[in-house]
Amino acid sequence: MLTSLGPVWRQLLRSIPALNTLSVLSNQAQISTMSDKFDLPSRYHGSEKSVWVEYIQLALDYKPLNLGQGFPDFAAPEYVTKALSEVATGENVLLNQYTRGFGHPRLVNALSKLYSQLLGREINSQTEILVTSGAYEALFSTISGHTSPGDEVIIIEPFFDCYDPMVRAAGGTPRFIPLRLNKTSGKIMSSDWVLDPSELTNVFNSKTKAIILNTPHNPIGKVFTEKELQLIADLCKKWNVLCISDEVYEWLVYKPYKHIRIATLPGMWERTITIGSAGKTFSVTGWKIGWAYGPAKLMTNLQTVHQNCVYTCSTPIQEAVAQGFELELGRLGQPESYFLSLPRELEAKRDFMAKFLSDVGMVPTIPEGGYFMIADWSALDDKVNLDQETDELKDYRFTKWMSKNVKLQGIPPSAFYSEPHKRLIETSVRYCFIKSDEKLQEAAEILQKWKASA
Amino acid sequence: MLTSLGPVWRQLLRSIPALNTLSVLSNQAQISTMSDKFDLPSRYHGSEKSVWVEYIQLALDYKPLNLGQGFPDFAAPEYVTKALSEVATGENVLLNQYTRGFGHPRLVNALSKLYSQLLGREINSQTEILVTSGAYEALFSTISGHTSPGDEVIIIEPFFDCYDPMVRAAGGTPRFIPLRLNKTSGKIMSSDWVLDPSELTNVFNSKTKAIILNTPHNPIGKVFTEKELQLIADLCKKWNVLCISDEVYEWLVYKPYKHIRIATLPGMWERTITIGSAGKTFSVTGWKIGWAYGPAKLMTNLQTVHQNCVYTCSTPIQEAVAQGFELELGRLGQPESYFLSLPRELEAKRDFMAKFLSDVGMVPTIPEGGYFMIADWSALDDKVNLDQETDELKDYRFTKWMSKNVKLQGIPPSAFYSEPHKRLIETSVRYCFIKSDEKLQEAAEILQKWKASA
Repeated sequence: MLTSLGPVWRQLLRSIPALNTLSVLSNQAQISTMSDKFDLPSRYHGSEKSVWVEYIQLALDYKPLNLGQGFPDFAAPEYVTKALSEVATGENVLLNQYTRGFGHPRLVNALSKLYSQLLGREINSQTEILVTSGAYEALFSTISGHTSPGDEVIIIEPFFDCYDPMVRAAGGTPRFIPLRLNKTSGKIMSSDWVLDPSELTNVFNSKTKAIILNTPHNPIGKVFTEKELQLIADLCKKWNVLCISDEVYEWLVYKPYKHIRIATLPGMWERTITIGSAGKTFSVTGWKIGWAYGPAKLMTNLQTVHQNCVYTCSTPIQEAVAQGFELELGRLGQPESYFLSLPRELEAKRDFMAKFLSDVGMVPTIPEGGYFMIADWSALDDKVNLDQETDELKDYRFTKWMSKNVKLQGIPPSAFYSEPHKRLIETSVRYCFIKSDEKLQEAAEILQKWKASA
Repeated sequence: MLTSLGPVWRQLLRSIPALNTLSVLSNQAQISTMSDKFDLPSRYHGSEKSVWVEYIQLALDYKPLNLGQGFPDFAAPEYVTKALSEVATGENVLLNQYTRGFGHPRLVNALSKLYSQLLGREINSQTEILVTSGAYEALFSTISGHTSPGDEVIIIEPFFDCYDPMVRAAGGTPRFIPLRLNKTSGKIMSSDWVLDPSELTNVFNSKTKAIILNTPHNPIGKVFTEKELQLIADLCKKWNVLCISDEVYEWLVYKPYKHIRIATLPGMWERTITIGSAGKTFSVTGWKIGWAYGPAKLMTNLQTVHQNCVYTCSTPIQEAVAQGFELELGRLGQPESYFLSLPRELEAKRDFMAKFLSDVGMVPTIPEGGYFMIADWSALDDKVNLDQETDELKDYRFTKWMSKNVKLQGIPPSAFYSEPHKRLIETSVRYCFIKSDEKLQEAAEILQKWKASA
């Protein structure tokens, strides 16, 4: 209606409230007729809801002590933050401009040196490494670049919650196989969560395109053993399957466990894409730089997806991460290495958390790697008023009730399971222990007080 | 073969060269049988090649003076780089950790303030703005979040080269309509490149899902007039079509032209998603922070795609950009505003480039916005040995020959056209003029010397 009038007239008409209302009404009518046409494309259906969005809001609303999201609340190593600080205002002003799309030269060179050494094979910095907007985008580019409609992708449960919607958005079908707890009493270690070999064998078939492995594992903390990896490798080779190995916690492994890169197993380099994270490596999750490496033939698919969604990553941050790796490359394996000092520090935090959770009657799974702890709270059932919450799943009700009433926040681990398997973990909670000693002490006191009450 | 042996044996066997060779051979056999299964999914076919990857390599190989890619070679405003520098090592260590996925609170608040003011309507910071990994990811999330198989998306040629593969990767069909030059002699302005109204009208139909508008326009430099925008708006309303408005050069408009946001036209807010860029706004293209804003109903689709591909963006960079906007908000429209001083500075560079290109016999289109200039080099045909290059299109041969022999690099503008229309622009080149005065002077001298030679 206002369309055919010139700008001055429109300006005038806009200032008349009645006409404005009319225009709002007619716009609302338009919006409702638009609703079908502009609905979310079907490939994204079911992925609108995110446990993170919901629980970050919950934390904002109720201000609990937050052991939910996985990030350190203490300072990152000074050399990386200082590097970023200096790069931003440094003499080379081009370090604030676009860099090479598949990875800043200095960073891919550092990554190539590091992983060539760790894998015992020369990794080409130009063709075998892709730098991404966090490991998250590396997962996306890998899954999207290697999944076509009809493909099946095996996902081990519990799983980092984005694997499932990423596979479905690419037209693939996730096939879930749970880690099963093979122990019901005594101290539970993450190694007590295992894949059933015959169950695993049966999930592979001619439609299987890929399997997503996560070691060290979030949220269980499991560090897959060589024997376990070998079974997965054998099945990948038998069925000509790609292994997507999410190893973002590669440096966070506790004694005496060792992180094994599945790409180092015989015949596996050729079919493995491994994913890493600067955020996890240098305790700067907000920097959002990750990477994928693997054989050039498989990497070209990722490059195509990457240049179709973000094209290139932050230059100053890549430069700072590169400088961090260059420093660490010089002291790899030595006591002052951050890759050794961080897990040493975290091991003490892990043990402290395991103790204070056990003290109140929870049953934690002691993680061998990563910085999360799953704990079963069934024994505390009578101390929680689950009826006050309306969610279907108990772990959602438990964590929400705790956030609101006890002021301690965890994440419901059923978020990491497929719909039919969510009840397997319904009486557990996930806590993160990469937090300052003061915060962890405070969490312990909150739980003790709660236990002592009523 | 080596699979069933233990790690110690494997270690030993690996050190025997003959066996190693054997293993490599057997791996190669595996790779070749894998080739079909691991080919790029069909939705990405045709998007493997990128003019950027090719021309960045060309620049590395021949080291020409590079007027190809669009980024400044001079320092960004000190207050943003200093902000990043201080945030990285600041007291609030949480600014190096994850922030809100849909946008760092301080940044979405600043963007909400800015655009509420510019659009004359309250823009909700929580539901109507999404921060992305560069405007590039904003385009991806918008296109992918609003395109289903069968949908047609109208793309105006020439176009920023990612629009086309992004539409196709989402299953959509691009429908191209070229800007046509309506003048063949005299001074050519970017306003002489126009859409044919009946051609535009005819491309809309019941399958049309969206149109991608780019104003100010890359590479033509056209600033769409209100009349031109009104025609697009009318067609969008008539056919219930989404308008994706790429306005990353919103501040780079030269006198007396004015940037008009199509979302401000009557009835258009409801159907427009507008895209902006911190890289273009603050001359920090390497920071890779962009955003999209629009009505909440349309934005939820983008949020879902965003949380499926990168989830969250760099915290320290978002914080620094937010601080930059806060400072600029206080001096919006005042002479010291960077949003006014930068285009003032660029206007002189534009005029200088237009002159030196004309002086050697090229016919530039004088841009009203942006920082690119298209120039026709037909008159110089006899000074270029196009037969030395093997590309099919003349502009590719021209730019490659110039990079190698004259040491001045531009971009072939046919990269911004669909296959059937590439020949429309075959005798032109795109140069970027957001470069230091010294560099531009050098470019002028290179061309003068070349013209004088032989």
